Amino acid sequence: MSTAEILGYAAGAMTAFTFLPQVIKTWKSKSAKDISMNMFLIAFTNEIMWLVYGVMLDNWVIISTNAVMLIMSGIMIWLKIRYNHQ
Amino acid sequence: MSTAEILGYAAGAMTAFTFLPQVIKTWKSKSAKDISMNMFLIAFTNEIMWLVYGVMLDNWVIISTNAVMLIMSGIMIWLKIRYNHQ
Repeated sequence: MSTAEILGYAAGAMTAFTFLPQVIKTWKSKSAKDISMNMFLIAFTNEIMWLVYGVMLDNWVIISTNAVMLIMSGIMIWLKIRYNHQ
Repeated sequence: MSTAEILGYAAGAMTAFTFLPQVIKTWKSKSAKDISMNMFLIAFTNEIMWLVYGVMLDNWVIISTNAVMLIMSGIMIWLKIRYNHQ
């Protein structure tokens, strides 16, 4: 595995969990007033595009990273709907 | 330009602006209580790693996307510090 591949997988692994602290914070506080719904709608749409791009390039860094982020942003959209006014 | 490249650039261009709605919302509302600081600290660190990965692969989709996201997450960290308690 090349240095670039190792760095890509490390960056991918970290990036995949970018939204996790926000999911945990919103889950615990039950408050999503300050969160931008558009941010997570854009993220959700993008991650579908990235998944297709990853499949076309057969690049597993891109595929695995965006599969996790798709799930995370889906959860955030649900939390935003659920806790927007609390 | 191949279909994969076009899709990559489109996804990259959209992804670059994922944080923009959050920047605008926080800027206007002056409230960042519900925002996770850790999310943007992880994002900021990641984007530096992605930039290096992009340079190593000479992949301008990855380089340009993450340069914009690095700036956006830097702004969000500043907004979170400034408006956390308002």
